[in-house]
Amino acid sequence: MASTFGQLFRITTWGESHGGGVGVVVDGCPPRLKLTEADIQPDLDRRRPGQSKIVSPRQESDTVQILSGTFGGKTLGTPICLWVKNEDARPEAYAEMKTKFRPSHADFTYFAKYGIRNWQGGGRASARETVGRVAAGAIAKKILRECHGVEILAYVKQVQMLVADVNPARVKLKDIESNIVRCPDKTAAEKMIRLIEKMRRAGDTVGGIVEGIARGVPAGWGEPVFDKLEADLAKAMLSLPASKAFEIGSGFSGITLTGREHNDPFRARGGKVFTTTNFSGGIQGGISNGQTIFFRVAFKPVATVMHEQDTVDVQFRNTTLKGRGRHDPCVLPRAVPMVEAMTALVLVDHALRHKAQCG
Amino acid sequence: MASTFGQLFRITTWGESHGGGVGVVVDGCPPRLKLTEADIQPDLDRRRPGQSKIVSPRQESDTVQILSGTFGGKTLGTPICLWVKNEDARPEAYAEMKTKFRPSHADFTYFAKYGIRNWQGGGRASARETVGRVAAGAIAKKILRECHGVEILAYVKQVQMLVADVNPARVKLKDIESNIVRCPDKTAAEKMIRLIEKMRRAGDTVGGIVEGIARGVPAGWGEPVFDKLEADLAKAMLSLPASKAFEIGSGFSGITLTGREHNDPFRARGGKVFTTTNFSGGIQGGISNGQTIFFRVAFKPVATVMHEQDTVDVQFRNTTLKGRGRHDPCVLPRAVPMVEAMTALVLVDHALRHKAQCG
Amino acid sequence: MASTFGQLFRITTWGESHGGGVGVVVDGCPPRLKLTEADIQPDLDRRRPGQSKIVSPRQESDTVQILSGTFGGKTLGTPICLWVKNEDARPEAYAEMKTKFRPSHADFTYFAKYGIRNWQGGGRASARETVGRVAAGAIAKKILRECHGVEILAYVKQVQMLVADVNPARVKLKDIESNIVRCPDKTAAEKMIRLIEKMRRAGDTVGGIVEGIARGVPAGWGEPVFDKLEADLAKAMLSLPASKAFEIGSGFSGITLTGREHNDPFRARGGKVFTTTNFSGGIQGGISNGQTIFFRVAFKPVATVMHEQDTVDVQFRNTTLKGRGRHDPCVLPRAVPMVEAMTALVLVDHALRHKAQCG
Amino acid sequence: MASTFGQLFRITTWGESHGGGVGVVVDGCPPRLKLTEADIQPDLDRRRPGQSKIVSPRQESDTVQILSGTFGGKTLGTPICLWVKNEDARPEAYAEMKTKFRPSHADFTYFAKYGIRNWQGGGRASARETVGRVAAGAIAKKILRECHGVEILAYVKQVQMLVADVNPARVKLKDIESNIVRCPDKTAAEKMIRLIEKMRRAGDTVGGIVEGIARGVPAGWGEPVFDKLEADLAKAMLSLPASKAFEIGSGFSGITLTGREHNDPFRARGGKVFTTTNFSGGIQGGISNGQTIFFRVAFKPVATVMHEQDTVDVQFRNTTLKGRGRHDPCVLPRAVPMVEAMTALVLVDHALRHKAQCG
Repeated sequence: MASTFGQLFRITTWGESHGGGVGVVVDGCPPRLKLTEADIQPDLDRRRPGQSKIVSPRQESDTVQILSGTFGGKTLGTPICLWVKNEDARPEAYAEMKTKFRPSHADFTYFAKYGIRNWQGGGRASARETVGRVAAGAIAKKILRECHGVEILAYVKQVQMLVADVNPARVKLKDIESNIVRCPDKTAAEKMIRLIEKMRRAGDTVGGIVEGIARGVPAGWGEPVFDKLEADLAKAMLSLPASKAFEIGSGFSGITLTGREHNDPFRARGGKVFTTTNFSGGIQGGISNGQTIFFRVAFKPVATVMHEQDTVDVQFRNTTLKGRGRHDPCVLPRAVPMVEAMTALVLVDHALRHKAQCG
Repeated sequence: MASTFGQLFRITTWGESHGGGVGVVVDGCPPRLKLTEADIQPDLDRRRPGQSKIVSPRQESDTVQILSGTFGGKTLGTPICLWVKNEDARPEAYAEMKTKFRPSHADFTYFAKYGIRNWQGGGRASARETVGRVAAGAIAKKILRECHGVEILAYVKQVQMLVADVNPARVKLKDIESNIVRCPDKTAAEKMIRLIEKMRRAGDTVGGIVEGIARGVPAGWGEPVFDKLEADLAKAMLSLPASKAFEIGSGFSGITLTGREHNDPFRARGGKVFTTTNFSGGIQGGISNGQTIFFRVAFKPVATVMHEQDTVDVQFRNTTLKGRGRHDPCVLPRAVPMVEAMTALVLVDHALRHKAQCG
Repeated sequence: MASTFGQLFRITTWGESHGGGVGVVVDGCPPRLKLTEADIQPDLDRRRPGQSKIVSPRQESDTVQILSGTFGGKTLGTPICLWVKNEDARPEAYAEMKTKFRPSHADFTYFAKYGIRNWQGGGRASARETVGRVAAGAIAKKILRECHGVEILAYVKQVQMLVADVNPARVKLKDIESNIVRCPDKTAAEKMIRLIEKMRRAGDTVGGIVEGIARGVPAGWGEPVFDKLEADLAKAMLSLPASKAFEIGSGFSGITLTGREHNDPFRARGGKVFTTTNFSGGIQGGISNGQTIFFRVAFKPVATVMHEQDTVDVQFRNTTLKGRGRHDPCVLPRAVPMVEAMTALVLVDHALRHKAQCG
Repeated sequence: MASTFGQLFRITTWGESHGGGVGVVVDGCPPRLKLTEADIQPDLDRRRPGQSKIVSPRQESDTVQILSGTFGGKTLGTPICLWVKNEDARPEAYAEMKTKFRPSHADFTYFAKYGIRNWQGGGRASARETVGRVAAGAIAKKILRECHGVEILAYVKQVQMLVADVNPARVKLKDIESNIVRCPDKTAAEKMIRLIEKMRRAGDTVGGIVEGIARGVPAGWGEPVFDKLEADLAKAMLSLPASKAFEIGSGFSGITLTGREHNDPFRARGGKVFTTTNFSGGIQGGISNGQTIFFRVAFKPVATVMHEQDTVDVQFRNTTLKGRGRHDPCVLPRAVPMVEAMTALVLVDHALRHKAQCG
């Protein structure tokens, strides 16, 4: 069940970074939605390695095939299986990993859990697993956009100490996609790119923050108690490789305010209720209140560095290991479509749940 | 399903802040565990209002009854229903809430979702719902302690800008319980108590950070991909009332480091593997690595303040509302047992899942 | 999870035959439904022992209390906890069961599984557990009736070799309730009652068949593949105590026909499609086709007989055991509301699932 | 969720009878199990059409590929995706189905539910969907055999009125596989084959009964209340295409006995408990008692017949339809591996659940 996400719009991803490929089964997609590979490929292109000089140079076209669930270009309401073949498998590049655990990767913990691991790459812990999520997320985004008028966006908000200035209420996809780091603040973007390039040259890596937003969500989506909208978003984000933190609305900085300052006053105009501030981040008591939903996700610096580091081997003896070959200096530009995908998956699931109980 | 948490150790909470009471059904508890009300009541006492001058003065004894699932003082392996009666129901105190939505509470969103709400208190959004979680968590903590040697603790790490100095590897329950704010750093604790009292007198409220830890978790618990241990912890914490943020290990501050600095080197000694730093927070790739698990949760200042604030009424007209009667200046001391409970529920569930697949 | 049933209209039952009581938590009930104890009590009265001379004489009023989930007589959309206290607990009557396993009861298998059992009655295997099902089923039936125009009925179709003549398309509740065996064929009912009384006097028991029907189900409810409507009905029925078999539509007797004979021809009239025969039992490919759904469930003779029988004790030594005290000669009259309840629970769950995906 | 089965050993099937292929994702398989395509292919060969003169002549090699979840010939504990390409797609054979609903097929109900259907074959309602089940079942059977010493078998017990004489305690796979109808009673098998051939020549079809057995299941598998072993088996069997009925142990015929006659006396010998009769079918109160589990499943005659039959078209006008081309006179020989697969999937899931809670 670890590889399944969602209650009513349910995805199951499968596949290792090296092997027959990676994919996803999407169960619960509404019928009669127009859907072809062309709806999915653009987000995979935003996710794939090799797309620019500041991301992993692994060469993969990541071409998606729809194996089931559509007929005549429309969804049938039955499971949609999407498949992307692995192309750039280079098992020889991983020979040293056969006997050594990479620090701050999942090599050791997978071995501790399963007593076996696919040492040719990161197995299920590889960012390659997110191919299935992004593919499924493209379908979810389409449903949200066409059936509910909901727009999902994400962008790089911070790289190390470089913070972008972005207005969540106004930012547009084309501004995000206007540069290779996917930061809509052009001045900050230039600095970020320079920093990442410097890290790449130094054989080192850098982390940062992706901000995700959902605009147009009506009041009433989400559930009380355990499946609160922010709880499901938190789980979705912390399930992404390399993520370490999540905050919604005012987040950690909200604790600097008192209750009087932090409360979002309600106002009404023309029969519509809104809040004059949005410290809540668009969600109150687990349920959307009609304001823009926004949150931030921290991604640690990528663990593979081109320097020798202390580690242990599979026989639990001390040794060292140095990263070789392909090196991804910063996961953030590729994390943007991942954050969008997970946001869309959470929201479309809650849209269906809301329809079931209260529709 | 919104009121159910867990896959194998599954709890379902029920009850509103005003009504016949609150409770929980625990399904999946192993058989033959010694269990009486005395195992559960202490944590409920730590959670209940009225326990000190710095928390809500609502008067409730919160006495728990086991309605099913045990026989002769031992668990049967069947569902355990726990029930706590509501005592201090004062519907008249909520008369104004019948027609007005409290700012930054869930009154409006529940109404938007369901078209009906229990306006005598916060309904399911009330902190009172956490009675069931804490009661179930006490069972989970007992299983972890007795069957796995795992210790779960939480404490107040920060109130507004007052930060405590605590060593997660060494902190003890008695230090945490040595003062009413539940902060093991005595100097900080005194300042925190003064600040909270000041807020209470001012009719205002204050937020902060609770840190949670799990010591003694063996390497191998957790799941890859979606049900990562940190993802389930994030969901658990963001499902608590008033929580706004979660970070594990280095969290948001990890982005100030480069990959070389942030990686946790593995070392081996006596056939055991450990890391010399713990930026990972005890989890790598979603699976425990044997180090101490630690994380922080931000709680916003409580929304009920004793001041007039802008809001709207149920007919969507502008109005104002002023909190009356009981006033909880800071949720943090009572959030401590809630964080412990949710941590224990996540871990015991993963312990069972690990046993099923890899045991 | 063994005590939870349903995906979107989800019930969790709890409680042993002896202990604090039995109950159920209903999660997923739509909001704003009028609901008081008076909607639930009548079905509990049909289920309770002591209602007539041909059922178990255990004395229980089975008075239901709603502990949560309603406000002002309407559902809130939040979990509804229903509780029925145990009254007629007579642990002394079970003293011999402490050391011996009753043949064809669950005493031995519970002990084999859990290493512990509540020997004061049948624990969770007791028919008393069905109190929670019948209570939840009363809510489900109300939703089906008021929101969907669907009528659920069940009746005794056969006792041992005595077969009733009933038309599933026309049978009415008042005919079913016109006699204590709940068989709408009066002539057969009289014979059945005489047979059951004879069995009671002989200290023996007898089984039979309950037929369940659902009228007014629109075409399109149900799911393909695993959660077929008939599959969920089969599981629901085989989860009832003492049930041994399930057949839908033509069932086992359908194999006497060839395909040409067995197919249900479609016809259309006034823009509506119907079938001229109904061997399918109202379901095709797991999805309702708009015809009456009907099925049969076999219940074995009750295992407790007033005669000495071979068995083993808890130390696995051969011994004998003779039933004492209360003796239920036939479960069928009380199984009727159980079958109705489980049918309603399956259908309301699929109604919500259909609304979510295709509504 | 309709396409997912199991709690801990969880399969998700995907694919239509016409399209890119059919497959399954198996999540929850224990790690380090030896597994290659050679473990799976034999059961697919038993399931595939064209294997003999008495089954569907559709030409498919049904060659399985493992796309993920293994490494070096062993399972990784991660999702195993299995894929079988569609080869014999002949959309032109289905042209008439574009505008007409086949009687007693799922064409009409799928259309009523989804408003769209893949008319080139039966879509998800096709027996072709069971490729994924049989492939996953082969893995489940291997786990049961190698880790638990449990043997799963099924065979044709009855074709129309021809009943085989088989001893569930002794029957062997090689006897079942000794003839094309998969009936271990050779005399009955010959008559069955002649009857099916006669039906094929007549353009008609015939149904019957498959008996399934599980030998070597230890006492204690299964769950009380809803997820009873027999309830999960019933659901599993009623989810198979064309199945109409399920009975376990004495089943429907058990109602001819009284309680005294029907009870299974316990006896002990050498510290082991057994029953001297097995009307319970190896399960009591939802939990295995250590005796052989056996049950029967009725399959209706296949709906496609080579004769003109009344039906309606997609505009709900009366018309007729005559089956053309490939004609499957009897589903029973191919249903045998399907029944085995579903039995194994239920049992391996309960084995894992038992280990989690009581292991």
